[in-house]
Amino acid sequence: MVIILGDHQYGKAESRVVRIYRDGARHDIRDLNVSTALRGPFDAAYLEGDQSNVLPTDTQKNAAFAFAKSHGVGSIEDFGLALARHFVTDVAPVEGARIEIEEYAWQRAVVDGTEHDHTWVRRGQETRTAAVTVDATGEHVIGGFTDLVLLKSTGSEFAGFLKNEYTTLQETHDRVMATSLVAQWRFASNDFSTVDIDWDDTYAGIKRIIVKQFATLQSLALQQTLWHMGKAVLEAYPAITEMRLKAPNKHHFPVDLAPFGLENPGEVFIAADRPYGLIEATITRDDAPDAGEAWRISAGRA
Amino acid sequence: MVIILGDHQYGKAESRVVRIYRDGARHDIRDLNVSTALRGPFDAAYLEGDQSNVLPTDTQKNAAFAFAKSHGVGSIEDFGLALARHFVTDVAPVEGARIEIEEYAWQRAVVDGTEHDHTWVRRGQETRTAAVTVDATGEHVIGGFTDLVLLKSTGSEFAGFLKNEYTTLQETHDRVMATSLVAQWRFASNDFSTVDIDWDDTYAGIKRIIVKQFATLQSLALQQTLWHMGKAVLEAYPAITEMRLKAPNKHHFPVDLAPFGLENPGEVFIAADRPYGLIEATITRDDAPDAGEAWRISAGRA
Amino acid sequence: MVIILGDHQYGKAESRVVRIYRDGARHDIRDLNVSTALRGPFDAAYLEGDQSNVLPTDTQKNAAFAFAKSHGVGSIEDFGLALARHFVTDVAPVEGARIEIEEYAWQRAVVDGTEHDHTWVRRGQETRTAAVTVDATGEHVIGGFTDLVLLKSTGSEFAGFLKNEYTTLQETHDRVMATSLVAQWRFASNDFSTVDIDWDDTYAGIKRIIVKQFATLQSLALQQTLWHMGKAVLEAYPAITEMRLKAPNKHHFPVDLAPFGLENPGEVFIAADRPYGLIEATITRDDAPDAGEAWRISAGRA
Amino acid sequence: MVIILGDHQYGKAESRVVRIYRDGARHDIRDLNVSTALRGPFDAAYLEGDQSNVLPTDTQKNAAFAFAKSHGVGSIEDFGLALARHFVTDVAPVEGARIEIEEYAWQRAVVDGTEHDHTWVRRGQETRTAAVTVDATGEHVIGGFTDLVLLKSTGSEFAGFLKNEYTTLQETHDRVMATSLVAQWRFASNDFSTVDIDWDDTYAGIKRIIVKQFATLQSLALQQTLWHMGKAVLEAYPAITEMRLKAPNKHHFPVDLAPFGLENPGEVFIAADRPYGLIEATITRDDAPDAGEAWRISAGRA
Repeated sequence: MVIILGDHQYGKAESRVVRIYRDGARHDIRDLNVSTALRGPFDAAYLEGDQSNVLPTDTQKNAAFAFAKSHGVGSIEDFGLALARHFVTDVAPVEGARIEIEEYAWQRAVVDGTEHDHTWVRRGQETRTAAVTVDATGEHVIGGFTDLVLLKSTGSEFAGFLKNEYTTLQETHDRVMATSLVAQWRFASNDFSTVDIDWDDTYAGIKRIIVKQFATLQSLALQQTLWHMGKAVLEAYPAITEMRLKAPNKHHFPVDLAPFGLENPGEVFIAADRPYGLIEATITRDDAPDAGEAWRISAGRA
Repeated sequence: MVIILGDHQYGKAESRVVRIYRDGARHDIRDLNVSTALRGPFDAAYLEGDQSNVLPTDTQKNAAFAFAKSHGVGSIEDFGLALARHFVTDVAPVEGARIEIEEYAWQRAVVDGTEHDHTWVRRGQETRTAAVTVDATGEHVIGGFTDLVLLKSTGSEFAGFLKNEYTTLQETHDRVMATSLVAQWRFASNDFSTVDIDWDDTYAGIKRIIVKQFATLQSLALQQTLWHMGKAVLEAYPAITEMRLKAPNKHHFPVDLAPFGLENPGEVFIAADRPYGLIEATITRDDAPDAGEAWRISAGRA
Repeated sequence: MVIILGDHQYGKAESRVVRIYRDGARHDIRDLNVSTALRGPFDAAYLEGDQSNVLPTDTQKNAAFAFAKSHGVGSIEDFGLALARHFVTDVAPVEGARIEIEEYAWQRAVVDGTEHDHTWVRRGQETRTAAVTVDATGEHVIGGFTDLVLLKSTGSEFAGFLKNEYTTLQETHDRVMATSLVAQWRFASNDFSTVDIDWDDTYAGIKRIIVKQFATLQSLALQQTLWHMGKAVLEAYPAITEMRLKAPNKHHFPVDLAPFGLENPGEVFIAADRPYGLIEATITRDDAPDAGEAWRISAGRA
Repeated sequence: MVIILGDHQYGKAESRVVRIYRDGARHDIRDLNVSTALRGPFDAAYLEGDQSNVLPTDTQKNAAFAFAKSHGVGSIEDFGLALARHFVTDVAPVEGARIEIEEYAWQRAVVDGTEHDHTWVRRGQETRTAAVTVDATGEHVIGGFTDLVLLKSTGSEFAGFLKNEYTTLQETHDRVMATSLVAQWRFASNDFSTVDIDWDDTYAGIKRIIVKQFATLQSLALQQTLWHMGKAVLEAYPAITEMRLKAPNKHHFPVDLAPFGLENPGEVFIAADRPYGLIEATITRDDAPDAGEAWRISAGRA
């Protein structure tokens, strides 16, 4: 029996990089949470405590802040690519880099009906995300968001389901459906120096499609809603090859008001915290190129 | 030496009341987190375990949901008043009721450029709050919000401050200023059956004023910004008699990029979590009527 | 109508001060979260942006860290007193100081049955707290803790309560009772240079009493349990003059297993998140000395 | 181009199952957070909204509570196996089940030096975890914990690391090392009906080994500490075939007290929130059996 070191990675998580553009009176802001992880021949650090191949996580953090100035922060996909390429290209032992970024959105403060030049209010809806991996297999870019909270007060059913000895749920043809959606989409290329993607525009378009599907589909199940979201995005964006969706079913239970002599025709609900349903799906093209390690977020592989 | 029971109260915290209006094809939603607390002669429950005067917290919760139907949910100030009056008027031993409400805001989903009839996206900026107290001294209403996150990239200074042996901070005449503002405003009346306030409109107006002051004042200190926020609100709203503001100074430190051969003229910042400054102020009219227990949130009084 | 500045204060919140004692091979640790707030004639900072009386919050933070070395960290009550006295005594315009501290507890790692000299595991039960106020009225010390999570599987009843048209709750003579207790106790003196209190020992003793009362009282209501906790502490500790207790009733509902052909005689429960009952009480001596601003935590007074 | 449904799963997350054993005066408690997910031919639910193969998440929740009574809750690994086997064996279309459980630990309240029969205090250190997968490839069990918070005040170095143009970090041969460790260990078998493992005893032993390695190793890097933790566990437990460790490096920076005329020989630190290092490693046997989907937690595979 031999014990060996398997997959490993290390990096600096959650550097809070805020970039202000102040080229004129009208400033701009991008507000990021940047995590970097490096992969490569770092075995000696584990086995013998030898750091000679180890670029400190503090240095990785410094690079993130320096790049916010030298490269600039446009979209988070672009910033992640720049940082990942730097680690793989410029730091000799590094073989793979994984950059995960969250972006907090700000909207301009409105003063007397006019957008202000240098003041913003945090928007606080969903958090945009990017996950960029660069390694020997090429470049992999995943866009996405977390926690887009959606609710529809009708247009949702759940009936005809499988029943067994533990089933007590009643069927319904009109219920509240709510979720806090997590979405990720993988772009097809593995060399983004040769393709031209408007990352911000793509993001806005995908979000618009997802909201539309949620709103307009007469939903027979959250599963069906997810499928239509993914399918519609892939149909609209040839550059995207795969969607992953994760949707908690945030239950809103009608409250029984009969003991108080009141009817409740779908008007008063209690929003429950836990437990919640959790529905997940991957929607993909049948000819999607190999994902490499695009989806690998940690040291281990599934 | 005698040990006695001092102030006390009890209630049901955080009932998640969601009210849908579905009178036609176009639905409406109000999404609340309701906490109730009762005050009165409940000593026997503490001293002897005698519950004969105790309206269970479960019953208080039921009342909150029932009122969402029977009274309806317009503004949270109005809903809080109705619920507080019910407890004080209809439940014999109750002498005082405190209703605290948070409201989560939703905006209509936009589909193909049109607002959707029955689908919403959680807005996720600040959380609107109300605190209503009804007791023998009358009715007290406090409106407010928590966590309005604001940032300005210039127009903020901090200089000329007191220095002692522990001072290392440098003066600055141009810094990022950011906060996550908590505001509360007390209405002057103690009988709201006789006054006519458009609660929702007042809320929107106050928020607008606060954002404007934050944006346009050349700030010499966060203290000064708070004063001007409060003063401007009181000047605009005669019905409001007192403002309380609580503002964490969410530090954004310029990153030293010199070791990497880069200048940083106010462009790259690290957003720090802790510690943070915390600035608080009350701005009031000199003839403000007595607050009674309007500000008392718990069993104890200051 | 004149608009004026009312109560105000400012300070640095949540400085994470970790103090290691390494006088020999056996180290010690105290791990604090320190918040300071100053009160006094700071009106000009609000009204005119004049900082000449304002000791920066950054300086307050520096003092907290410096005192961790120069004064040392014994108990958090003692550390708070030293820091508060410093601000009031040594910084000319300061009239009052409020120091709030949380302490995170560590226990020594056990290696081969022996406590280790310099390694600890975070204990993670309740968080110990102190709130010290020093001003013209003297010194006020409040000890306490947050989030001591307690549960008993029997020995708790709730019956004989008031009923009205919104009551659906059933009476019970055997239920699970659980809470996440917040307790604060005020010491009677207003000059702690003349009294000798073993703060750490007092803390341990009070916690022991509270746990014992929770466990051994056949509880007719959470209210009654709180009363007995407070009474027992005041009886045991003459130096303490007032207790404040705040107890969420963390509901554990028996699950109806009858549809599955199973009995559930108090064995299977669902732990609910929200809503929860919230019971609060002050237990005090009838001759308790004036609290001054001991309980005032923010700019506003109740 | 064809768009297809890829991997998917659905279930009920975070059912808070509390099981009391009350066979005599001395009760016992197990306090769980149970998440279930099913895998199988559920395509029609996504593609057409056809639920005929879909066992509702509500039913899955009911089964979890029913099993807490009928099967009982011993260790979470055993409970997870029972539940997973039920779904795969008893529910016709289900092909795979994934059960993830967190366990909150309670210790008996001590009253007058004696452990109490039916009262507990939440222990609040690490959270124990289990992840059980049952499918056509057999049974897979992963034990583990999250958030074991450890700190050592000496015996940790970081030097000899790789430097580049972004490196500013100084080398150190004596620093505070702290982490909030996440550990998972995979058992070798794929049929646990034939092996006899004392899950609770194994858990306690692994935690003891991990704490010991953290305490006693003169650490040249957190990487090295992880390796020794994993290696020691695998050496001690032949039944375990693979360890995954994830360790945030919770930075404690020495505070510069020189401006205040004070020395700081490793005594006063500021505990930083973000960013933090994040070190991950898999330690495995070279002949570890295939993991199947043991590590797959979501719809997607890496």
